[in-house]
Amino acid sequence: MAKAIFYHAGCPVCVSAEQDLLNLIPSEAVEVVHLRNEKAKVAAAEKAGVQSVPALVLSNGNVLHINFGAAIADLK
Amino acid sequence: MAKAIFYHAGCPVCVSAEQDLLNLIPSEAVEVVHLRNEKAKVAAAEKAGVQSVPALVLSNGNVLHINFGAAIADLK
Repeated sequence: MAKAIFYHAGCPVCVSAEQDLLNLIPSEAVEVVHLRNEKAKVAAAEKAGVQSVPALVLSNGNVLHINFGAAIADLK
Repeated sequence: MAKAIFYHAGCPVCVSAEQDLLNLIPSEAVEVVHLRNEKAKVAAAEKAGVQSVPALVLSNGNVLHINFGAAIADLK
């Protein structure tokens, strides 16, 4: 089975929640891509349909956008 | 470890994506609650911070909102 890909950009507000999600998914089933550190992969993420991070692109092509990034209220 | 709780309301657009996510998470680690069928649990979901479905409430209290429900574009 192809791996799912978890895209994020190091959002400090979301790191805790992201880590929790990754704790739930077996590590062999998901690849983690940090788009700020791996900018060459941004185009592939866009092509896959990623509109915001964090997002989980599933092996069947479905894209789950999680929290649509940080809300202003979360940053206060 | 306390289970995570996956709240949804049977949104037909999201069923496929939801199922994919649940395929990634071991079933013993997550409880699934269908809020349209289990309306008595809506108050608990709200208290946990759920603002839209589907959402995943983690055992540490973090809430991951996924896709904020269906976008209009998804329904066309």
